[in-house]
Amino acid sequence: MRDVAIIGVGTTHFGELWERSLRDLAAEAALKAIDDAGVDRIESIWAGCMTGGLFNGQEHIGALVADQIGCNPVPAARIESACASGGMALRAGWFEVASGASDIVMAMGVEKMNDVSGARATYALAAASDRDYEAFHGATFPGLYALIAVDHMHRFGTTREQLADVAVKNHNHGQHNEYAQFRMPITREQVISSTKVADPLNILDCSPITDGASAVILCPLDDAAKFTKNAPIKIAGIAACTDSLALHEREDLSEFRATAEAAQKAYDMAKCTHRDIDVAEVHDCFTIAEICVTEALGFFERGQGGPAASKGITSHGGKIPINTSGGLKSKGHPVGATGIAQMYALVNQLRGTMGKMQVPNAKRALAQNMGGTGASAVVTVLEKV
Amino acid sequence: MRDVAIIGVGTTHFGELWERSLRDLAAEAALKAIDDAGVDRIESIWAGCMTGGLFNGQEHIGALVADQIGCNPVPAARIESACASGGMALRAGWFEVASGASDIVMAMGVEKMNDVSGARATYALAAASDRDYEAFHGATFPGLYALIAVDHMHRFGTTREQLADVAVKNHNHGQHNEYAQFRMPITREQVISSTKVADPLNILDCSPITDGASAVILCPLDDAAKFTKNAPIKIAGIAACTDSLALHEREDLSEFRATAEAAQKAYDMAKCTHRDIDVAEVHDCFTIAEICVTEALGFFERGQGGPAASKGITSHGGKIPINTSGGLKSKGHPVGATGIAQMYALVNQLRGTMGKMQVPNAKRALAQNMGGTGASAVVTVLEKV
Repeated sequence: MRDVAIIGVGTTHFGELWERSLRDLAAEAALKAIDDAGVDRIESIWAGCMTGGLFNGQEHIGALVADQIGCNPVPAARIESACASGGMALRAGWFEVASGASDIVMAMGVEKMNDVSGARATYALAAASDRDYEAFHGATFPGLYALIAVDHMHRFGTTREQLADVAVKNHNHGQHNEYAQFRMPITREQVISSTKVADPLNILDCSPITDGASAVILCPLDDAAKFTKNAPIKIAGIAACTDSLALHEREDLSEFRATAEAAQKAYDMAKCTHRDIDVAEVHDCFTIAEICVTEALGFFERGQGGPAASKGITSHGGKIPINTSGGLKSKGHPVGATGIAQMYALVNQLRGTMGKMQVPNAKRALAQNMGGTGASAVVTVLEKV
Repeated sequence: MRDVAIIGVGTTHFGELWERSLRDLAAEAALKAIDDAGVDRIESIWAGCMTGGLFNGQEHIGALVADQIGCNPVPAARIESACASGGMALRAGWFEVASGASDIVMAMGVEKMNDVSGARATYALAAASDRDYEAFHGATFPGLYALIAVDHMHRFGTTREQLADVAVKNHNHGQHNEYAQFRMPITREQVISSTKVADPLNILDCSPITDGASAVILCPLDDAAKFTKNAPIKIAGIAACTDSLALHEREDLSEFRATAEAAQKAYDMAKCTHRDIDVAEVHDCFTIAEICVTEALGFFERGQGGPAASKGITSHGGKIPINTSGGLKSKGHPVGATGIAQMYALVNQLRGTMGKMQVPNAKRALAQNMGGTGASAVVTVLEKV
């Protein structure tokens, strides 16, 4: 197997982009990544998208992207693992380059979520849960994550304030991200007094409905200099795992096992531990998710994710800065694009081009992307070469 | 890169399976393939599905399959390329094994299409076309393939009778397939007098709405004996290509360029030509599709696909038997499963277990699977080792 590097990244603005279509967004991100890499061709496309069908009446997303950027007959397929679709697309592209089958491969993600009503968006997103055993009975995603939050609060003493502090931190970070959906700082009091969605989660504990797309270009690490002037960023570790689709089948509601197991495999592949990670982007679809995930990744003991956020340990300038891009909470969460948007942020960190949110001398970065209530998880370790 | 073999296959019945759910079908095919291979584990799952969202309100199909067959935390992702989702899932699994990352990988496909109304199914299937430029303006899939048929008839003299003869042949074959949706022979007159759908295509020119799932198990060819007692079937060539998503962007309406280009790559990889193929399964979603595809694969000159069908050249016992399983027309077309169902048929041909439809001494087989009006195509060449 060949080592694989990221040599180009591109993203659109994230937000309510009423004037843009699914294909427009996909093409913008894809062409920006190609331009950034400076390559004159790509050989294959893996496009992450959760539900073009329910949001846009459009499947066949791979062919759509290849067509829209004018690169037929290049092969293209869409990858879907709910909100982990982007991370899984990266993994598929990594296999293709690692195998030696192709040299220059695009992994991208796109979702256009705002063209349906709120009720329809809730229905669409519930397709990431277990339709038969959860959604059909009325469970929504905020409802499922509220169950996780209640479990964590009851067992570990996690507080309403600690949940809020995750959102406050990510908005503080995201105000510096020119592509973010919400660039305003918020306060703990605003989060706690915001509209209740599913107790204990308020609207400011939830990531938003977002339109957006992101893309990366992969090539063999050893050949990077042949294709680009950019410093390659090595994919040192990448692994995916699954857990039960429905929450009720788990032995432990707030332990994200797929994330923990994927992280261990990714650390092993990268020959490192969580202690060697300088900066991370994690899947904060809800504030409680970031707390549980930082524990599953090994950054903190069970129950210590909340206190860590409140103490600033996960803030820019803290011991392990989490979501310096603003995360899903502030940057936005176009579900199929999120795993690739994480790459956009981390490649910028490792290139030293993250602006005010730069982590000094960042050499090793981690991304964690998950689908549903953690039934799918992809963990990726990137290294500056 | 390692050579990759298919060592196990499984399929459900295809048809209107009112008593079965999406997850039931997926699990049945997956477990049958595991049993057939005789393996005690799998390391990864690639699940083809076109639109679980629009048919079943269920995305996150990879995690669903892993969960339902009880193999968490094995990684699983869904692949979508419209009706080529199955073929693309095979290609993704092939990359994973070829790369050396995994040894025993499942590629499968599933679709449960009958749980929605006819109008809703038409809407869902139109998500494989270009929603903005085709479906939104009223084009349906039969309508788009009718345009292709009219072009082919006008330019090459293909006749209404020749279209019918493709359906007659595939029903003749499919009557011997115990898993097929339609096991009754039909006559040319029945096809020609059947209900008009989109002139010149009648209902008996169209593949049906089908529930079903199929699965295969892949491993490194050189290690097959370590994992299974079955004779391995080598994936000698596999390639995918794309074409414009919308039909109006093509220079030639009835030339399936993505298929032709993928075939050339697959032949090159397998070091063979179309003359070396003993038996093939092709994507006869409509009768005209089989005619155009057999031309794109090089079996016949442009315009000779229709006469070839009428002369029996593509029948069992003919020079190049096409769709001895019954094809999509008679066997049924659960869209995300079709590319894998083709593998089921061809592995049986190469094992010599195809029963009455066995092609004597079949050593090399070809599958062609496509999405939309040919915007995605996957061509695979299998060899008896």
